[in-house]
Amino acid sequence: MDESGFKLNIAIVGLGLIGASYAMALKDLAPKCIYGVDKNKETLKKALDMGIIDEAYKNGDVFLKDVDLIIIALYPQDTVGFIKDNLHNFKEGVLITDTSGVKESVVDKINSILPDDMEFIGGHPMAGKEAGGIKLASKEIFKGANYIITPTGKNNKCNIDIIEKMAKSIGFKNVIYINPEEHDRIISFTSQLPHVIAVSLIDACIEENDIGLYTGGSFRDATRVAVINPMLWSELFTMNSEKLISEIERFEESISKLKDAIKCRDVDKLDHIFKQVSLKRKELI
Amino acid sequence: MDESGFKLNIAIVGLGLIGASYAMALKDLAPKCIYGVDKNKETLKKALDMGIIDEAYKNGDVFLKDVDLIIIALYPQDTVGFIKDNLHNFKEGVLITDTSGVKESVVDKINSILPDDMEFIGGHPMAGKEAGGIKLASKEIFKGANYIITPTGKNNKCNIDIIEKMAKSIGFKNVIYINPEEHDRIISFTSQLPHVIAVSLIDACIEENDIGLYTGGSFRDATRVAVINPMLWSELFTMNSEKLISEIERFEESISKLKDAIKCRDVDKLDHIFKQVSLKRKELI
Repeated sequence: MDESGFKLNIAIVGLGLIGASYAMALKDLAPKCIYGVDKNKETLKKALDMGIIDEAYKNGDVFLKDVDLIIIALYPQDTVGFIKDNLHNFKEGVLITDTSGVKESVVDKINSILPDDMEFIGGHPMAGKEAGGIKLASKEIFKGANYIITPTGKNNKCNIDIIEKMAKSIGFKNVIYINPEEHDRIISFTSQLPHVIAVSLIDACIEENDIGLYTGGSFRDATRVAVINPMLWSELFTMNSEKLISEIERFEESISKLKDAIKCRDVDKLDHIFKQVSLKRKELI
Repeated sequence: MDESGFKLNIAIVGLGLIGASYAMALKDLAPKCIYGVDKNKETLKKALDMGIIDEAYKNGDVFLKDVDLIIIALYPQDTVGFIKDNLHNFKEGVLITDTSGVKESVVDKINSILPDDMEFIGGHPMAGKEAGGIKLASKEIFKGANYIITPTGKNNKCNIDIIEKMAKSIGFKNVIYINPEEHDRIISFTSQLPHVIAVSLIDACIEENDIGLYTGGSFRDATRVAVINPMLWSELFTMNSEKLISEIERFEESISKLKDAIKCRDVDKLDHIFKQVSLKRKELI
């Protein structure tokens, strides 16, 4: 890479909300060329019309021989599938990253099939919206958000630096390093569990007309992510099943403790829990 | 009441976030006089300095003989206490309302002590902030929010209309009528349960440095109300203990159903739940 940093040929695979937002944000860095890959013809046409990609492809193909950096913004299993299917198309020395919300099995599988002269670095942009698709793409979703990189012993410092530089250049505030297994353990608590909770809260919703009239900010916020992409989150949850189950169980213990105090009308105990939790929340975020 | 509607003497008891926001918003309706009551001297001074009350009192007293409408913005038990202590001070024909988040026991207790020539109408403004106090008061918190009125057989239509008119005049969008018992049942789900969940999620938080770096919007939103007023919410939860426990248990069943599907890696079941829940959330709010 030269001084200016992004005089590269970049391919973005999957032009949904995340992939198209990457394309949009990367365009500002004036790379040599952005190749867009998406199985949906209309999405490709839209991306060309928006001017966020320079060339459009329905699949990976020989054009990948010219590509220095590939960003795969597909579901986790499709990410692995794309790499498996295109091993023969990749350029020697190519750097590949992804955007999957689970890392351990994705990184393991990819590392087991990728030859030594190609490198994969797991990435997880902590950004999104409740709804997906190129129409909602916006480079604003990255501004101030957290970006996680999950390097392994197979990664070179200079390539890790490229991913960090890219993340910061498109607006991410914090770039954090953690190994793939730890990533999945922490994310099961900070991201997957809140989704499990939001879905369960709506699932438990009493059948009542106009229940929306009785809601305030607490209910709206607690259930915002209950409008969920079914295929994506089924995959994320089941791929990280064991770690997620253990976080759900810890949450169940906490709610059960609170329930006991409410049942016994134990004001002192509630007061104590509330004070501790308020402090902890303020420290956390 | 005359045509312009609010040529009244109004007392606001408790100038915390909610009471002071009422004072601020009611000032715009040009009532005859706003009497502020708060046990804290500095709060009273601040309210006078802000010009949101005309007269300041540390307690209820004979000045209440001139007051047509009393809005009590205290904790539920203090609301009952204030009325009990000031029965001899109230004007004949006075209209009293409150802002408590639980209604059945508050309305019952007040109705049992209030003479027939005075009227209490329970009110619940579904507005607030995570932190309290007059310094954060703002009439903007009412804009577009829901206002619940819990009338009983003891209330007159014209007085109920005054409360509805007041709520709409200060910015509430929907004014909803429901009996006190139903209010407490629905609120235990739409407001108290989301608070229980937010507190439990922070309580269950893994001990980890910099966990904030691994959070996105879902965690921030799910835990926003975990910064909680300990005394107020201990009281609200314990006063509505039975109804809240039954909603917590229904939520526990939902999360347990989801947990089983995740444990069995049952993608079809998860997909089915997610689709149903997404639809339900969109219909609700």
